[in-house]
Amino acid sequence: MNLNGPDEPVFLPLGFLWSATKAGIKASGRSDVALAEAPLGASAAAMFTRNRVAAAPVVVGRAHLRKNKGRVRAVLVNAGNANCATGDSGIVVAEQSCAALADALEAAPQYIIPSSTGIIGVPLPVEKLVAAVPAVVAGRGGNEEALKAFATAIMTTDTRMKLASAEIQAGKKTVRIAGVCKGSGMIHPDMATMLMYIFTDLDAEPKDLQSALKAALDTTVQAISVDGDTSTNDTVLLLASGASKVKLTASGVAKKFAEALRAVCASLAEQIVRDGEGAQHLVRLQVTGAKSVDEARTIARSIANSPLVKTAWAGCDPNWGRILSSIGKSGIAVDPGTINIFFGPQQVCKKGAAHPFDEKQAHEYLKQPEYKIKIELGRGKSSLEFLTCDLTVEYVHINADYST
Amino acid sequence: MNLNGPDEPVFLPLGFLWSATKAGIKASGRSDVALAEAPLGASAAAMFTRNRVAAAPVVVGRAHLRKNKGRVRAVLVNAGNANCATGDSGIVVAEQSCAALADALEAAPQYIIPSSTGIIGVPLPVEKLVAAVPAVVAGRGGNEEALKAFATAIMTTDTRMKLASAEIQAGKKTVRIAGVCKGSGMIHPDMATMLMYIFTDLDAEPKDLQSALKAALDTTVQAISVDGDTSTNDTVLLLASGASKVKLTASGVAKKFAEALRAVCASLAEQIVRDGEGAQHLVRLQVTGAKSVDEARTIARSIANSPLVKTAWAGCDPNWGRILSSIGKSGIAVDPGTINIFFGPQQVCKKGAAHPFDEKQAHEYLKQPEYKIKIELGRGKSSLEFLTCDLTVEYVHINADYST
Repeated sequence: MNLNGPDEPVFLPLGFLWSATKAGIKASGRSDVALAEAPLGASAAAMFTRNRVAAAPVVVGRAHLRKNKGRVRAVLVNAGNANCATGDSGIVVAEQSCAALADALEAAPQYIIPSSTGIIGVPLPVEKLVAAVPAVVAGRGGNEEALKAFATAIMTTDTRMKLASAEIQAGKKTVRIAGVCKGSGMIHPDMATMLMYIFTDLDAEPKDLQSALKAALDTTVQAISVDGDTSTNDTVLLLASGASKVKLTASGVAKKFAEALRAVCASLAEQIVRDGEGAQHLVRLQVTGAKSVDEARTIARSIANSPLVKTAWAGCDPNWGRILSSIGKSGIAVDPGTINIFFGPQQVCKKGAAHPFDEKQAHEYLKQPEYKIKIELGRGKSSLEFLTCDLTVEYVHINADYST
Repeated sequence: MNLNGPDEPVFLPLGFLWSATKAGIKASGRSDVALAEAPLGASAAAMFTRNRVAAAPVVVGRAHLRKNKGRVRAVLVNAGNANCATGDSGIVVAEQSCAALADALEAAPQYIIPSSTGIIGVPLPVEKLVAAVPAVVAGRGGNEEALKAFATAIMTTDTRMKLASAEIQAGKKTVRIAGVCKGSGMIHPDMATMLMYIFTDLDAEPKDLQSALKAALDTTVQAISVDGDTSTNDTVLLLASGASKVKLTASGVAKKFAEALRAVCASLAEQIVRDGEGAQHLVRLQVTGAKSVDEARTIARSIANSPLVKTAWAGCDPNWGRILSSIGKSGIAVDPGTINIFFGPQQVCKKGAAHPFDEKQAHEYLKQPEYKIKIELGRGKSSLEFLTCDLTVEYVHINADYST
């Protein structure tokens, strides 16, 4: 398996076209409408936000996937407006935009999945989106530039385009996976959205694809946090065109595909945390000795969402007491007497109590832009690497800025 | 019922002596050891932290309350060191300090409750605490000044002493309640501790006192948050000396006492949030139409712990979308279509969607040091007022400051 990041050549899956255009929805005037199409259709798997206040495109997307039985023709994304908390008319305009694209592609509307990201509670200017459909359809292309145009148009306050791709060999054939996403964690100002689209030319049934997606996200997208604010629009969509002529069910393919899909998701997840608002440090929380991966995740989230822990990280402060306290309030019945904590090479807490360490060296270690904190729980055999970041003054400035 | 705040005369319960002294545990050199004694003993009720990493004094205090069957002679508090994450030796030194005070008071150690607040993970200098026992015992007094000396000595990074008192009439007799506490929410730098001591001269059995305390805390101390970080040392202790000669079980007393106890707890809880680290605004979240008080609390906490909501408040930004999103991620199965949100007099969200409002007026409203945000859930008949504050740049500075 080969994996490439955003600045390397893309392993481009066959069977897809991408495009982007400017509809005037973003105040900046940048490209804000993106289209991904599988001209011959694709099997689809999706995961949506668990937030009870789900945006209109999430509601419509879920309904379309039920109707189309996991076969998707195209995805239409707009950035700059989340079409969330917009009532019944939000649903109407999401359907309207799908209908406009379906007409242009001579498809039925249920084969279109809509996505929106941006400000909450403001009606989506659907006339701008509909007016942009002819241009975005006309601009379709199957090359790297087209995919990057798509990845750029879906950005809101992201500072970097996010992309990862992989390829695997199946006998003499090749399967490619390319994923793009946007989001600085779940924490964008008015634009709290994580959108992720993964394209592959594997040939697979929707239900097998769904299992593969769930497994891949479990230890990647489900193992990151910037501040724990689950968005109203979160969407991950995996489309498989089948153009590689390699079946998921063929001998040895499922395992290789799972590995490559996980690698793409892990790269995208890491790109999101690296672009976290105001973040100065990428922190790899390595939780080991848990009774299950879910338990490790619960404890990692309790640490990663603690403002006291996150501000200590902002100050490069080797304050392990705050970490221990966060573990204690996680809801898991931990015994502090079996907990060890390490800042990189140095152990700082042994069996729940202070372990002598070189504080200056630990401070220097925590000054690095990226570092590891290991938590040994001593409860079981499961482990998880969870990615998070610090909470800085810049984060507060970005999110408290009120412009009137 | 009369209620007085920290700057008003204290309704001083009979049957108690207080004292404080300097033991050199606080780096500042301020008074750091406090004693509260009921010379004839008192019935006790207590609530301790639910954090699994409980500090040594919490472990010892729980054990003593089991042994003494709810009868307490004295409380010995030190500030400057939390005696938490200090292993078995932490337990030993907590017992040692109780034994030293018990000797001086000619009591058995199980009638002493220890409390500590301050830095986590550093051994408590027990020799300093034990050495201070003679001075703190010698300084005992039953007047207002003695109680305020106690309230001052338990402070760590608090900027203000916190005190509330009430009196109720029972026939021709009077019952007094005086409470003191420390804490800027649950969010002190290395000193994440909320300690609260309530003294009354009511005559009551420990079990009745425990019920009364639980009920009083439910909508007061359990309805505040600065950042959701539950401390390792949190303790609320209610002591009843009986010196008023009024029995809790006498006709009409229980209801009046419950009301007064709740008022004292509510005042102390509000004083904590007002002194929240870096806080510029006291926010009264009024959650109505919930199916239960617990449901209202879960939703209020989800709002109050959202960094996006809290930073919007820091910017006086009438961003109701973030509030709606926080309600959606609370885990309660809300229907956005029944939710209304008000910023003071103005409705900003109706049935889960935007409601036209004067944004400039809302911005001015949110500039006030204290204001109300009302959430109508439309699910049931329970409601709760929850107090919280904003997340400011100052908060990050305070907690990220690393001094080497």
